[in-house]
Amino acid sequence: SKGSTQLHSLALANIARNTELRLRSVNFFSHTLGATVHPRYTSPTHPRQLGGLWHWVNRNLHDFQGRGHPSPFRVLTPWEEPSDCWCAAASDDKGKAQIGVIMPRAMKPTSITIEHMPSTGTLDIGAAPREFEIWVRRQADIGAPHAYNSHPNCGEPPEAGLVCVGKAAYDINAINHIQNFDLEANEAIGFVDFAIIRVINNWGQDWTCIYRIRLHGEPEPIIAVSSTLGEL
Amino acid sequence: SKGSTQLHSLALANIARNTELRLRSVNFFSHTLGATVHPRYTSPTHPRQLGGLWHWVNRNLHDFQGRGHPSPFRVLTPWEEPSDCWCAAASDDKGKAQIGVIMPRAMKPTSITIEHMPSTGTLDIGAAPREFEIWVRRQADIGAPHAYNSHPNCGEPPEAGLVCVGKAAYDINAINHIQNFDLEANEAIGFVDFAIIRVINNWGQDWTCIYRIRLHGEPEPIIAVSSTLGEL
Amino acid sequence: SKGSTQLHSLALANIARNTELRLRSVNFFSHTLGATVHPRYTSPTHPRQLGGLWHWVNRNLHDFQGRGHPSPFRVLTPWEEPSDCWCAAASDDKGKAQIGVIMPRAMKPTSITIEHMPSTGTLDIGAAPREFEIWVRRQADIGAPHAYNSHPNCGEPPEAGLVCVGKAAYDINAINHIQNFDLEANEAIGFVDFAIIRVINNWGQDWTCIYRIRLHGEPEPIIAVSSTLGEL
Ligand SMILES: [K+]
Ligand SMILES: [K+]
Ligand SMILES: [K+]
Repeated sequence: SKGSTQLHSLALANIARNTELRLRSVNFFSHTLGATVHPRYTSPTHPRQLGGLWHWVNRNLHDFQGRGHPSPFRVLTPWEEPSDCWCAAASDDKGKAQIGVIMPRAMKPTSITIEHMPSTGTLDIGAAPREFEIWVRRQADIGAPHAYNSHPNCGEPPEAGLVCVGKAAYDINAINHIQNFDLEANEAIGFVDFAIIRVINNWGQDWTCIYRIRLHGEPEPIIAVSSTLGEL
Repeated sequence: SKGSTQLHSLALANIARNTELRLRSVNFFSHTLGATVHPRYTSPTHPRQLGGLWHWVNRNLHDFQGRGHPSPFRVLTPWEEPSDCWCAAASDDKGKAQIGVIMPRAMKPTSITIEHMPSTGTLDIGAAPREFEIWVRRQADIGAPHAYNSHPNCGEPPEAGLVCVGKAAYDINAINHIQNFDLEANEAIGFVDFAIIRVINNWGQDWTCIYRIRLHGEPEPIIAVSSTLGEL
Repeated sequence: SKGSTQLHSLALANIARNTELRLRSVNFFSHTLGATVHPRYTSPTHPRQLGGLWHWVNRNLHDFQGRGHPSPFRVLTPWEEPSDCWCAAASDDKGKAQIGVIMPRAMKPTSITIEHMPSTGTLDIGAAPREFEIWVRRQADIGAPHAYNSHPNCGEPPEAGLVCVGKAAYDINAINHIQNFDLEANEAIGFVDFAIIRVINNWGQDWTCIYRIRLHGEPEPIIAVSSTLGEL
């Protein structure tokens, strides 16, 4: 039928776009590249996701294919199934969910990708993120006075020295469940190796879950990073 | 050439269909949602798949990417390569292969998906399942008298209190190796949280291997399941 | 736009082709089928990839999704992200990178597949393999005198008794990053269960990294392999 052919074309357009983005754009938030989570700037994991002792025993006795304990690190890894995500507890100072990521190499951010299960494939779509802000700085600038003008729509900075490079919203009703957002070019910011993603609100649930976040951009030229490991 | 363009279109049609099914239809047999295997209603693993001591040592010494020991649990997990499956030993009371699955949330089954490697991609296509039956009940009804009329083509029930909601056949010669079968709507059955899949026969091998089974349907409204964990 | 539609079509053509190759062609280098690496014929792992003690501790403390220590075994496994590869140290007698693979079943090789990240998706495309040779023999023939004429473009055999069945080059500028190369039919060679892939040069880096190699062909009829395990 014509309707099914059209659905078909939309599905293939998403598959083409998502595959190209995954394969042809370096993700500086990738665990394989060496990105790690900074616990101090990251929300606590929701107790509901951690489960009780029985849950823990069960998880370690059964064959869980190395998927391990739920932790914010999951935001840096691929996913395949519902629940391959990290669920944060809301807190006063970190919004609905917040994650701080130390990148393995300094870069100039150009776009960010937010991934979530499509709404019909999960029983908990209300936990998807909605509005979020992206804050960046160079690790070495920790505690520095707030040097640049932040993005006008952003709220209070998580800490002095951080700059907001964008605010956007993930849409659970969009055709594609993997959504890429351009970031404002701001030459004054320079190369950064630390970023905080703060989720401001979600789609109705008490907690917020994140499947994956990827950050794309231009790497700092190699001459300046001779002492770091970089990718192999 | 025209032939290759046509092959191309068929391949893309399968990819679109399989991706949509995977992402946009909740699978109540998913290990990540919390589904588990009930050993009492499940065939023993084929000794050939378990291998001997040497095999076991080898599997644990080498880097097996967390794929773990072969077990019926694999029927609830994704697969990527040949042998990412579970092979059952035939038995008198459980057909060629049988698996009992406790679902994490009660649901009304509407369709079932059987996955297997395409025939040209495996050296053991004879082990693919052929005819199979789907039996369901609510966990709480264990041992209850057989309350509803079963599907007319099904054989003897594995136990009193179970209802057959469908019988179908996996076809190794079909264009798509991931096959979805509609189940009979039967309002009298209500919501169920336990299912048995019994494979009646296969494509010629002495043993039967299953790559993945997914069960789709409508979840029981949340009001009745306040005490269960559900998805996070 | 027309440009984006065309990019779109190229992306889908690659996806269709790569999916068909993965699903419908038996890979005799597959770890799940039982293929293993022969250390004696394999280059040492590059020290840069192994990292230091801190790296090792980090890798084992954090959730690395069962990805394990870098080793040549990774050439036999799937990959998804940059760095899901094996990096070899160049050596005098094994070229830029060399791997010996013991296959679980004897076969007549017909084609080989080399996989690598697309050039824009990695920060280290110079480490991709370029020219490579494929040498084969039957395990039982170890040390036998060099019986057949080798492929004319190949260099010195890694050992007596090995036959070169092809030489080709992986192209980082090709449209598809998964590249399949036909091998010369040579009836005199018969069925083989051991292969050496030797990478002669790369795209400019000091070390060479391999994401995955697959070997396709016709399996030896089952009558002759009754004592081996084969696939389950
Ligand atoms: K994830
Ligand atoms: K599986
Ligand atoms: K790999």
